Amino acid sequence: MEKKIRTIAALNSHNVSVNLDEVILRNGKRGERIKIIHPEAAAVIPFLSEDEILMVRQYRYALERQTLEIPAGKVDPGETAEECAARELMEETGYKAEKLDLVCTYAPAIGYSSELIHVYSAKILQQAGQGFDQREISSVEKMRLSEVWEMVKKGEIVDGKTLLSLSMLKIVGEP
Amino acid sequence: MEKKIRTIAALNSHNVSVNLDEVILRNGKRGERIKIIHPEAAAVIPFLSEDEILMVRQYRYALERQTLEIPAGKVDPGETAEECAARELMEETGYKAEKLDLVCTYAPAIGYSSELIHVYSAKILQQAGQGFDQREISSVEKMRLSEVWEMVKKGEIVDGKTLLSLSMLKIVGEP
Repeated sequence: MEKKIRTIAALNSHNVSVNLDEVILRNGKRGERIKIIHPEAAAVIPFLSEDEILMVRQYRYALERQTLEIPAGKVDPGETAEECAARELMEETGYKAEKLDLVCTYAPAIGYSSELIHVYSAKILQQAGQGFDQREISSVEKMRLSEVWEMVKKGEIVDGKTLLSLSMLKIVGEP
Repeated sequence: MEKKIRTIAALNSHNVSVNLDEVILRNGKRGERIKIIHPEAAAVIPFLSEDEILMVRQYRYALERQTLEIPAGKVDPGETAEECAARELMEETGYKAEKLDLVCTYAPAIGYSSELIHVYSAKILQQAGQGFDQREISSVEKMRLSEVWEMVKKGEIVDGKTLLSLSMLKIVGEP
């Protein structure tokens, strides 16, 4: 247990805040903790068929590079994680899922963030026709799973939620 | 590509800074991005034998709960990621590894953090005798891999680096 003494400083941007807190550590001494208060999020592995998925290419400001990843985003107020997964899939790829199954829920950065990501797999996709959100996404790509795993083995996919989602689905199996 | 216009506000704590930046988005409009400038980190799956690993129980301030996870920490200046993995293993468990192998490198929170985690598997552990860092770790636990996977399937392990490391090692295989 670590108990907060005070918030030293804070930043806020839309629905995310970052606090720098002074805390009492396990040994009774004082220390500092950065805490990002982040909404829950959802990620989705969109299957076009048993061996083909959709991925999105996106510039990531914090990494200063483009990444290839599965669609994901923050859960809006009043929305369930499953609704968020369906909405993000539609916004980022233009595809609609007929069935979403929860794969797992995890905390991506427990050292400094409260974020929890709910991972879904999506089946029987249909193109809904309105394209994708060009404000964030550079391109939507159809990828064979064998091709994705080759990229993973070469270290060409670095996004944690994509690696975790694909490998957990493979191991834990589908519902 | 998203170009920084200015830093609106910033927080600093030891070797981590958090900036709130105003940026130009892909569509030419202005937006805000939170960017955590984080040192590289290392995580290690410590094998006592083929089917037994060490895990640590730790209170995580950002999640407001205890978690069961593999040892990990930030790379110190002048240290390699492999040296960091060996040091964190020693500090958090009191065990020394004879051999470390890189499993993968990934970005845990690409939406807001520059952090990259290098994941290692460690073999042939020997207890070095000085115990573990009680400032951060509540307990060190010997766990059978089958028991760990049961906990994963029940959603009892939420730490992303632990889930990603174990599942990636299982899939990508050992070197």
